Amino acid sequence: MDYSNMKPQDVVKLIRNGEITHQTSGMCNGYAQANLCILPKEYAFDFLLFCMRNPKPCPILEVGDAGSKLIKKMAKNGNVCTDFPKYRIWKNGVLEKEVTDITEYWQNDFVYFLIGCSFSFESELLEAGVPVRHIEEGKNVPMFNTNIELESAGVFHGNMVVSMRPIPYDMVVKAVNVTASMPRVHGAPVHIGNPELIGIRDSSKPDYGDSVTINDNEVEVFWPCGVTPQNIVMATKPPIAITHSPGHMFITEVKNTALKY
Amino acid sequence: MDYSNMKPQDVVKLIRNGEITHQTSGMCNGYAQANLCILPKEYAFDFLLFCMRNPKPCPILEVGDAGSKLIKKMAKNGNVCTDFPKYRIWKNGVLEKEVTDITEYWQNDFVYFLIGCSFSFESELLEAGVPVRHIEEGKNVPMFNTNIELESAGVFHGNMVVSMRPIPYDMVVKAVNVTASMPRVHGAPVHIGNPELIGIRDSSKPDYGDSVTINDNEVEVFWPCGVTPQNIVMATKPPIAITHSPGHMFITEVKNTALKY
Repeated sequence: MDYSNMKPQDVVKLIRNGEITHQTSGMCNGYAQANLCILPKEYAFDFLLFCMRNPKPCPILEVGDAGSKLIKKMAKNGNVCTDFPKYRIWKNGVLEKEVTDITEYWQNDFVYFLIGCSFSFESELLEAGVPVRHIEEGKNVPMFNTNIELESAGVFHGNMVVSMRPIPYDMVVKAVNVTASMPRVHGAPVHIGNPELIGIRDSSKPDYGDSVTINDNEVEVFWPCGVTPQNIVMATKPPIAITHSPGHMFITEVKNTALKY
Repeated sequence: MDYSNMKPQDVVKLIRNGEITHQTSGMCNGYAQANLCILPKEYAFDFLLFCMRNPKPCPILEVGDAGSKLIKKMAKNGNVCTDFPKYRIWKNGVLEKEVTDITEYWQNDFVYFLIGCSFSFESELLEAGVPVRHIEEGKNVPMFNTNIELESAGVFHGNMVVSMRPIPYDMVVKAVNVTASMPRVHGAPVHIGNPELIGIRDSSKPDYGDSVTINDNEVEVFWPCGVTPQNIVMATKPPIAITHSPGHMFITEVKNTALKY
């Protein structure tokens, strides 16, 4: 099934009905995708402030009023409980389970945060002639924990998670330029070329997602990643949190071009 | 005393010592100025979300962790309790008093919000040859309540406040361009030319600040204003809030150029 040219509304309908439960990279070319973090309102101010202080890994796309499941800006009629293919339930910073619908877990004091996703700029990279390896190989993007410490806010603290794409040396500048113009979906890379410098020992063993082929003429390029909140949840241990499963994103009805400078 | 070419540190020292208690327009050319709103943490998430949803009147410059009085980013060593020339204490949406120091009113659950101020771009206007009438006349800028409804967030709701500067017709485009490049200090005007359309009956009678001369060859240009949170506090009636007095701003150590796109 080729989802790349389908409309977000049609793919989200399949996700909502439980017919798609796998990762979403390469789907709905041209439309932004979004990460998720849900927390009780008691934690919402500190988390929103954390995102504002760390806009590269955590660029805010939409935040709900306390108790609201409705996505209004990034889609016409989205439901945060059903419109991601897979969710993770976290208790005290420990992953408890993965589910495909969180309706039964919803609490009236929950606040959802939609955060920009680098899957959004992949169709712009492809259009610019820059290859995207995990799409070529039908995989999820490789993601890594790093030693890049983020600015804390209230109780929230922790390190950045990054996604990696191998880029041919002669296309690195183009990849930087294309992505730098889209800060609301993570923007420019945070590191190019030496994974050890940002605390990654073995780039063939991602902490999340899949390993991909790196060719001889290519360099590893690392972008800030919206899985960062999951790392923050593990570090901060709120009693409950819900996130998407890495790579299993909400496909918005907003075009990438609308999120450019 | 000409404060226009003094350094922020020197003027803030005079403010902190109570030697300046008047309005700050025209001070420290080239440096951004900031509005203030302080609320208990219970209200902080809703208010931060309100600001994010309404970035034109409420562009966030810096937000403190709950209980912190220290300004760290917009100045090296600022104190939110002493570094504004004048403050307003609000109880249940009603202005209770004006003071020049809020140290004795500080609560451990207070969160401060510094919001961009259009005084910041006035030196850029002057440099571009655009006159700024209230500076010429040694007055505070005229500010008005409007009928421009803002997007609510949680308990916070209300209308936009605007500042007005009369601009010669042949300089309006220049004034728009100069200010549009500075969205973190309110950016472009929200209205040009017909005050009644935004609910202003008599532009010689401002709701805050002073009235200024409008010449025959000039049109009234309205910018979003950081007094908006005071209007929101009046509409929402939190048990306690503290703001600056209109026009009595914090002079930051950050240059306007650093806040451009």
